Amino acid sequence: MKTKDSGLCAVKGVRAFGIKPGKMGLAIIVAEGNAAGVFTRNKVIAAPLIVTREALGKNGRLAAVIANSGNANAFTGEQGLADAREMVSILSERLGVDSDLVAVASTGVIGRKLDIDWIRDNVDEVMSGLVASPQGNSHAARAIMTTDTFPKMTAIELDCGVCIGGIAKGSGMIEPNMGTMLGFVYTDAALSSDVLDGCLREAVDRSFNMVVVDGDTSTNDMVLLTATGATGISPDINEFKEGLEHVLVDLAKQIAKDGEGATRLIEAQVTGAISEEDARLVAKAIVRSPLVKSAIFGKDPNWGRVVAAAGYSGAELEQDRLSLAFSNGVDTVYLVDGGKILSEDKEHLQKLEAIMGSLEVIIMVGLALGSANAKAWGCDLTYDYVRINSEYTT
Amino acid sequence: MKTKDSGLCAVKGVRAFGIKPGKMGLAIIVAEGNAAGVFTRNKVIAAPLIVTREALGKNGRLAAVIANSGNANAFTGEQGLADAREMVSILSERLGVDSDLVAVASTGVIGRKLDIDWIRDNVDEVMSGLVASPQGNSHAARAIMTTDTFPKMTAIELDCGVCIGGIAKGSGMIEPNMGTMLGFVYTDAALSSDVLDGCLREAVDRSFNMVVVDGDTSTNDMVLLTATGATGISPDINEFKEGLEHVLVDLAKQIAKDGEGATRLIEAQVTGAISEEDARLVAKAIVRSPLVKSAIFGKDPNWGRVVAAAGYSGAELEQDRLSLAFSNGVDTVYLVDGGKILSEDKEHLQKLEAIMGSLEVIIMVGLALGSANAKAWGCDLTYDYVRINSEYTT
Repeated sequence: MKTKDSGLCAVKGVRAFGIKPGKMGLAIIVAEGNAAGVFTRNKVIAAPLIVTREALGKNGRLAAVIANSGNANAFTGEQGLADAREMVSILSERLGVDSDLVAVASTGVIGRKLDIDWIRDNVDEVMSGLVASPQGNSHAARAIMTTDTFPKMTAIELDCGVCIGGIAKGSGMIEPNMGTMLGFVYTDAALSSDVLDGCLREAVDRSFNMVVVDGDTSTNDMVLLTATGATGISPDINEFKEGLEHVLVDLAKQIAKDGEGATRLIEAQVTGAISEEDARLVAKAIVRSPLVKSAIFGKDPNWGRVVAAAGYSGAELEQDRLSLAFSNGVDTVYLVDGGKILSEDKEHLQKLEAIMGSLEVIIMVGLALGSANAKAWGCDLTYDYVRINSEYTT
Repeated sequence: MKTKDSGLCAVKGVRAFGIKPGKMGLAIIVAEGNAAGVFTRNKVIAAPLIVTREALGKNGRLAAVIANSGNANAFTGEQGLADAREMVSILSERLGVDSDLVAVASTGVIGRKLDIDWIRDNVDEVMSGLVASPQGNSHAARAIMTTDTFPKMTAIELDCGVCIGGIAKGSGMIEPNMGTMLGFVYTDAALSSDVLDGCLREAVDRSFNMVVVDGDTSTNDMVLLTATGATGISPDINEFKEGLEHVLVDLAKQIAKDGEGATRLIEAQVTGAISEEDARLVAKAIVRSPLVKSAIFGKDPNWGRVVAAAGYSGAELEQDRLSLAFSNGVDTVYLVDGGKILSEDKEHLQKLEAIMGSLEVIIMVGLALGSANAKAWGCDLTYDYVRINSEYTT
């Protein structure tokens, strides 16, 4: 497996472009193939998700995606559905493809009518920019940003020659209950939509769903995976799954790192759980806890808050077996071992200070009850999170 | 039912006092009677809770409570248990009562050894101050404060002549997963410990548990209810339950209002749910959402975030039936009715601005699916929350 730097345009058969002249942005990705999608579990579902889920359900194929930022087209009733369908037909007409082959996605403010005229007025500019190059990729990634501070993209090439690449957008990472997460992932492998569906669900569970807390999904969350088959290669399914998980975890970590107002990435690594479900509960509780997040912002190794989060996570836990360490990937400092607090000598405290000052803080919790593991990602809670979210619509 | 202003000392047979000279504080309440308690559901349980639960389990009676602030005595192993038992014996010896009649509670930093010498050195000063007056009540309420900015107390007298009064402490209200909640409630009614236990659990579910999100309890949360029986009156059980709920809701709202860094109280009122459980899920999701909390801080009527929180709460919900309003108890502005967004004329916007500027913002959500209701309380998310929690131990 090796890294490619052209994002989704590393994948054979994919063209992309996008514009973001102001609050509104528009991205188009053109690539035909078998496809699968994962959608929000929120009971309030935005119009574009309803339209895209219908389209995917018909034939498990996509030829293109049209996505706008600046307006979520959520809670917009019949008018919203009509606007989402209109976005689809604007693109399907220009491409000369069936409307069931076009996916639509939106992200932005909820409850406001979509400015469909703006989409109509700008679609030709985006269409004329479509290109299979790193520029196409990065313009598309930028066009779907809202409060994101950098575009999110990644790509790899598997040993078998197949590429997997994608772009994503996120935000609102303190507890991402409404910072819409969009992911558009492509591969040039030849795979059926059923196989893609299984692989996507598994990989999403170990990546995006470990940033976006279970159930706390936005009205607009959507991840699409399309396989152009342009290489003609049907890869070994385990190799493909591993590659897909790598791509989605990379995008998920970029989303966590760019949480609103974030200054640091937090990775929770949980080992020794009775089940993977339990490991996930603990990992998520840690990266979700505002008290842990605030402590990391303050470079404060307040491990008591980590222990408390593990304790209320719902997972099986025995405090006499618990171990806990902080790491930055280079140094690791063990603070608790088998329920006992380890002594804090000077060298220990110096290392800990260096770790707490790192851009990526890894919190390692060992439960010593079983053999299941999980990772979750989040970011610190900062003054800027409050500023951004108290001024969003006004 | 009428309000009394002397807190728990409004209750016949209760003496209290406390001191808070620095970070550490010590409170003692003396009042013998049947008793019941509710304890944290966190799997990491602090030593004083283990000791108090044991004592209550033996005979369902208490003669006194000793509580310290500044150190939670949590995650402190065998030493912590020994220290908690030592606190009990320090008080039981002085009072000449069995150690099984003394409850112990702690709140503060986790994972540090309790300074038992400080307790021993200061207990006589507190003992000598014990008094059945408003001063005794307020000194005890102040002594258990940590990041609380005001002491929490309330009392009422029922029509039958029975008093119910209590003190409480809280904090960390963004998602109170570690801001320990302590409540010490007394009544001079004559009631058995079994009856007290049932009444307490029901009232806690509708008050403290609607501030402290399910499962997200600290390692030290504890509410004790003791009935001195000093009036000799056995009140009508429904009258007593109503009064107890009133007292606990009053304390719960004080805790929410004094959330760390809070500038406003948020009350979520949910009506028309299929079940009380569903109504609670929606109400809690709203007051828990950092995006809703940030919006309220910014006086931003961002109702889309309220809808999204309701949507991911896990409760049954049909967006076409949803109605939503903001209120400050005087003016109410309806924003959504039966899934339709209501027009925003000038008068409407002026009222909304006044509501968003109020110290108490009520968010009313109607589900129109059933007849169950619930209320939950929280506070806004502010720069000061981040400041307080990023600097806590350092």
